[in-house]
Amino acid sequence: MDLQPLQFHLTLPDWAEARLAALPGCLPDAHGRMGLILDLARQNFQRDTGGPFAAGVFERDSGRLVAVGVNRVVACGCSSAHAEVMALALAQKRLGTYDLGGPGLPVHELVVNWRPCVQCYGALLWSGVRHLVIPGSGPELEDLTGFDEGPIHPDWAGELARRGITVREGVLRDEAVALFRAFRQSARAVYNARRG
Amino acid sequence: MDLQPLQFHLTLPDWAEARLAALPGCLPDAHGRMGLILDLARQNFQRDTGGPFAAGVFERDSGRLVAVGVNRVVACGCSSAHAEVMALALAQKRLGTYDLGGPGLPVHELVVNWRPCVQCYGALLWSGVRHLVIPGSGPELEDLTGFDEGPIHPDWAGELARRGITVREGVLRDEAVALFRAFRQSARAVYNARRG
Repeated sequence: MDLQPLQFHLTLPDWAEARLAALPGCLPDAHGRMGLILDLARQNFQRDTGGPFAAGVFERDSGRLVAVGVNRVVACGCSSAHAEVMALALAQKRLGTYDLGGPGLPVHELVVNWRPCVQCYGALLWSGVRHLVIPGSGPELEDLTGFDEGPIHPDWAGELARRGITVREGVLRDEAVALFRAFRQSARAVYNARRG
Repeated sequence: MDLQPLQFHLTLPDWAEARLAALPGCLPDAHGRMGLILDLARQNFQRDTGGPFAAGVFERDSGRLVAVGVNRVVACGCSSAHAEVMALALAQKRLGTYDLGGPGLPVHELVVNWRPCVQCYGALLWSGVRHLVIPGSGPELEDLTGFDEGPIHPDWAGELARRGITVREGVLRDEAVALFRAFRQSARAVYNARRG
């Protein structure tokens, strides 16, 4: 009988395992963390395993890497498999909790290669992460890549602050924009549901 | 060596298999579809398998049920495992595509037991679903259940319309509010990351 599936699973690309095994356990400063995320985002589109986006969950103070994710929408056939959703879910699996801000845990931060889309902005809110690190939040992502980022709340940063989530913007901004430009020049496909 | 996980999977509760096997393949009208979603949402919290939320993807015109989902945040240890994310991912898995609005597919609608939170609003945008059916969009959900729904864009329905997604509101509104009231009276726990 043709019943709906009762479960689904989302995976990192094959190349991730060796890449992760070669990483240091800690990345002490924001530039090092963002540098890793930019490298993963670039590899992801150049290897045709997803869009030009990566994200990582770190312990904010120690720099311990908890989990990274990359965009897997097309490869996994799942429109919500954005880099942030992947990284947050893998971090929560690793730590055995749905709340990365729960009692007894160190402060966790999410490092992403631009301001999250509206879905992942929400995913950040519910994750327990307390700090967001991004290269920028302006129209460069949409202008250069063609990805629709959705209608985020006009006071997006204030709404984060009201929930105890701080934002650091401007980390490796030029490098992040250069990556989006490289993606555009590669002329790869862009999925936007509204054009589907 | 303690490496991060490379994949995660999300599952419906054990009781779902028998419940789904007993369903008709089509539910021709909006009230029938919402009635099913409300029943699943109620079972989910009463059986302690998740929060009081369910969602379903249907073919809008035929009423064919593609997939349902329920909230699985606590049970699956994943803060993004909201009912809408579950239903959309399971529908995409069943149809073998990340775009439910892709070429050759019938129009799909998402039926949820209230206006989606900001994360799931974004998930809806990227899913390819063309129609949203909800009982209501006001503060009743947050007031009665205590769940934070996040800062949704002030012109949320207009932003959907600009992307070709229509909204029908007011289906089984009283029944949906009664369910939230029953949830409150059950005195079950509510997870909000900002209080974590």
